[in-house]
Amino acid sequence: MNQPVSSRKPFPAELLAALMAKFGDRVSTGAAILEQHGKDESAHPHAPPDAVVFPETTAEVALIVKLCGKHGIPVIAFGAGSSLEGHVLAIYGGVSIDLTRMNKVLAVHAEDQDVTVEAGVTRKQLNQHLRDTGLFFPIDPGADATLGGMAATRASGTNAVRYGTMSENVMGLTVVLADGRIIHTGGRSRKSAAGYDLTRLFVGSEGTLGLITEVTLRLHTLPEAVSAAVCAFPSVDAAVRAVIQTIQLGVPIARCELLDATTIGAVNLYSGLELREAPMLFCEFHGTTASVAEQAETVQTIARELGGMDFEWATKQEDRTRLWQARHDAYLACRRLRPNNRAFSTDVCVPISRLAECIAETYDDIAMASMPVALFGHVGDGNFHLVILLDPDHPEEADLADALNRRVVMRALEMGGTCTGEHGIGIGKIEFMNEEHGDAVSVMAAIKKSLDPGNLLNPGKIIPA
Amino acid sequence: MNQPVSSRKPFPAELLAALMAKFGDRVSTGAAILEQHGKDESAHPHAPPDAVVFPETTAEVALIVKLCGKHGIPVIAFGAGSSLEGHVLAIYGGVSIDLTRMNKVLAVHAEDQDVTVEAGVTRKQLNQHLRDTGLFFPIDPGADATLGGMAATRASGTNAVRYGTMSENVMGLTVVLADGRIIHTGGRSRKSAAGYDLTRLFVGSEGTLGLITEVTLRLHTLPEAVSAAVCAFPSVDAAVRAVIQTIQLGVPIARCELLDATTIGAVNLYSGLELREAPMLFCEFHGTTASVAEQAETVQTIARELGGMDFEWATKQEDRTRLWQARHDAYLACRRLRPNNRAFSTDVCVPISRLAECIAETYDDIAMASMPVALFGHVGDGNFHLVILLDPDHPEEADLADALNRRVVMRALEMGGTCTGEHGIGIGKIEFMNEEHGDAVSVMAAIKKSLDPGNLLNPGKIIPA
Repeated sequence: MNQPVSSRKPFPAELLAALMAKFGDRVSTGAAILEQHGKDESAHPHAPPDAVVFPETTAEVALIVKLCGKHGIPVIAFGAGSSLEGHVLAIYGGVSIDLTRMNKVLAVHAEDQDVTVEAGVTRKQLNQHLRDTGLFFPIDPGADATLGGMAATRASGTNAVRYGTMSENVMGLTVVLADGRIIHTGGRSRKSAAGYDLTRLFVGSEGTLGLITEVTLRLHTLPEAVSAAVCAFPSVDAAVRAVIQTIQLGVPIARCELLDATTIGAVNLYSGLELREAPMLFCEFHGTTASVAEQAETVQTIARELGGMDFEWATKQEDRTRLWQARHDAYLACRRLRPNNRAFSTDVCVPISRLAECIAETYDDIAMASMPVALFGHVGDGNFHLVILLDPDHPEEADLADALNRRVVMRALEMGGTCTGEHGIGIGKIEFMNEEHGDAVSVMAAIKKSLDPGNLLNPGKIIPA
Repeated sequence: MNQPVSSRKPFPAELLAALMAKFGDRVSTGAAILEQHGKDESAHPHAPPDAVVFPETTAEVALIVKLCGKHGIPVIAFGAGSSLEGHVLAIYGGVSIDLTRMNKVLAVHAEDQDVTVEAGVTRKQLNQHLRDTGLFFPIDPGADATLGGMAATRASGTNAVRYGTMSENVMGLTVVLADGRIIHTGGRSRKSAAGYDLTRLFVGSEGTLGLITEVTLRLHTLPEAVSAAVCAFPSVDAAVRAVIQTIQLGVPIARCELLDATTIGAVNLYSGLELREAPMLFCEFHGTTASVAEQAETVQTIARELGGMDFEWATKQEDRTRLWQARHDAYLACRRLRPNNRAFSTDVCVPISRLAECIAETYDDIAMASMPVALFGHVGDGNFHLVILLDPDHPEEADLADALNRRVVMRALEMGGTCTGEHGIGIGKIEFMNEEHGDAVSVMAAIKKSLDPGNLLNPGKIIPA
C-alpha cells in the first residue's frame, strides 16, 4: 500500500499520434489493455498507463523512449506483469512498453555455457529451448517471468542457494538509456575487471535507470543426477536449524525450501498433493550419482537429529516436476485459503544465524493477526515470504497488514538483514529504503539523476521522494 | 606506458599544515615514502604523490578527503602497492592515503560465513585469523594484497573458477565519498533486491568513485578433502582443451591453472621445484573425500585422452602450499628470466570456446617477439597473462611490448572477451575502454561525474579523458 499520490500529466495527443504513426495497431489505449498493464501480482491499487506499445526491436524501444522524452512522459517496461511490489504500476501515467513480443532466443553458446535472449523471453521458454543442450538456466521465481523482468528486479528463486541470483547469472545487457541511446554492458567472458560493473548496476534497478532489451545469461550443466525429497519436522524452528547446519557444513544443496503447515495445507488443496500438514523442507540435490547420495545422506542425518521424519523421495522426473510446480504455486495456493481475498505478500532476508529467531518472532506476530498468513521461503538463503490474505470488504485489514509488514521488515533490518531478499522495492518497500541504506540512498538518487535527469524512467520506484 | 601527461597543481602549504596538525608524524613528505607510494608492480613510470597520510579510522579517511577536497587536491587510496596497471600512481599528484594501518579484522560471523575487515587487512592475514573457524577466504591474487585493494580492483585469482571473484564475494562496503560523507553499502544477508547494487558498483571502481575503508566478505567452508596435482601436456593447446572439457562437464574444479614451458622453467628456478619443462596444468579439487576422488578421476581421464601425462599428486599440505606458492610467485619467477628487466604484464579473458585459438594466435605473436615472454593463467575462467620482460637499456622494447599488448587485447575483444580479466584498467588499459564498452563508457563517465564532480578521486584512472 503506501502508494505515492498519483500526479499525471495530460497525455499529449501529438505523442499518441506519433506512436500510432510508427507502431499502428501495436499501440493500444483500449481500456482492457491499459487495465492489464496497470497491475501486477501485488495488492497495490491498480494504476494503468495512458498507452501501451508493443515494440519488436531494441531500436523500436529506443524510438518510444525518445518520443516520450520529447514530451516529458514516463515510460515503464512491462514483461509478464508478475512483479510483487507494484514495480510496473504507472503511478504517474505514461507509456507502458510491453516487451513480450521481443521473445527470441538470439544465440546459444553451449560450449561457453551462455545464452543471449530478448527481454521478453520467459524462463520456462528458455529452458524449453535449451532442452537438447545439456544446459539449463536455474533462476526460478514462482511465476514464469520474463528474463528482462527478472534481470530488472534481481530475481532469484529456489535454486539461488546453489546457483546464485540474477546478480550472479547475468553476464551482459543491452539497455536503452533515458535519452534513447543504446548501450551494451558486460560481455561473454566469465570475468572482467574492465571498468565499472554497469551490468550489476542495471540488474535490480527496476527500469529506473534504463530499459533492458536483451540479456546474456550464464547457463549451467544439467547435473548427472538429481534427487529430491520432502521432510516433515516437528516445528518450523527444527526445520530451520536443519537448514542452517546444512549450509554451515558446506553441503552444496541445490534447493532447500521451507513451507509451514498453513502453506502445506494450501498446497495439498491446490496441487492435489497429500503431504503431512506439518512444517516441511523440500530439498533437491544435484551432482554425480555418488555425490547426490552423499549429500542426501548428510542432510538426512542432520534432519533426524532435529526430529525430522524420514525423507520421502521424489525419484521420478514427473514427481519432481510436480513437487516443484507445487512449490512454485505456493503463492497461488495460499490465495485460495480465503475466498475473494487480496493477497499482500512480502519477503525479507536475514543472516542465517538469525533466521530461526526471526521466523519465531514473526510467528508471534502471525499469531496476533486476524487474517490468514502463510510463511514459506528459500531458507537456505535466509529468505522467507509472508502471504497475508486480506478481505477487500474489511479495508482496515490493509492497515493491519501494513503494520505486520513493518514489524517483520524492521526486525530483519535490526538483525542485519534486508527489507527484501528477492521481490524488490517497487513502491511497496520504498518507505524502508532510508532505514536500510541510510545516506547510501543519496548515492542511488545521484546516479538516478545523472542517468535519468527528467525522471521519466519508471518514476516513483526505488528512490524515495 | 600510454601514461597521460601529468598535470600537477602546486601542493598548498595550508593543506599540508592542516594535515600535519591533525595527523602529526602520520603525514609524510619524505622522498623515500613518496617514491614508495608512487609505484606499483607495473612497468609504468613512477608518479609519486605530494604527501602520504596514514589514517587509522574511516573518520580519519573522511577528514583527509574533506581537507583535500577543500583545496581541489586529488586523493589516491594505497594498500599493498601490488596493482599491475598503475592504479595507485599519483599522475596528477595529490595525497596518497595509505590504509595499511587500518588492518583490524572487525567481526567474524562464523555461523553466517562472513567477516568484516578494515581495508588494510591482507588476504593472508585474514586466512591466518580464520585458521580455527573451519572457514577460509578463497580469492588469491598473486600478491598478498589488501582486501580493500582487492575489492577496489575486482581481483580474482586461482580459486575464481570455483568460488568466483571479488564481485561474488564482497557482501558490503564502508565507503568514503568525494565530499567526505561515509556510507555503508550492501549488508550481511546472502541476497537482497533492495535498490541499486552499490556494492558491485564500488567493487572494481579503483578508488575513482569513493574510498573503501571496510569490507564485508563472504567466507567458505574449508573442504573436508583437498587434493592437488600437476599434469604435463604435449602442447598448450592440449592442456587448454582439457580445461575446456572439464568446465563443460560441470566438474566443480577448485583451481585449474596453466603454466607454459617458459613459466615452468622460471618457477623451477625460483621456487626450487623440479617440474618437467612442458605446458602444465596445476589442478586442485575440493569436496568430500569421495567427491574429490571422483572429480580427479574425471579430469585425469580427460587429460589422458588429450595426451596428458599421469597426474603427479601433491598429497601433503606442505607440498600443496609449496606448489601454490610457486604458482603465485610465477610473476616474480618470470622476472628472473632476464637480468635487470622491467616487467610488462597484461591479462585478457575470453569465452572459453575461443581460449585455445586465442592462446595459439598469441603464441604466434610471442614467436615474433624479441623479448622473453611467459604465458600462464587461470584458464578455467578463460583468463591468461603475459609477462613481457623488457631491457631498460633498450627503450624501443617498450613500444614493441605495447604493440604486442594491443594485438592480444584486440584479439580478445574480437573474440567476445575483455581487455582485462582481473588486473583492472588503471592507466594501462584505459586506451581500450572505448573499444570494449563503446557508448557505455559515457554512462561510466556520467556516474563518475555525479559522485566525484571535482574529479579528485584517483583521477586519470578507468575513465578515458
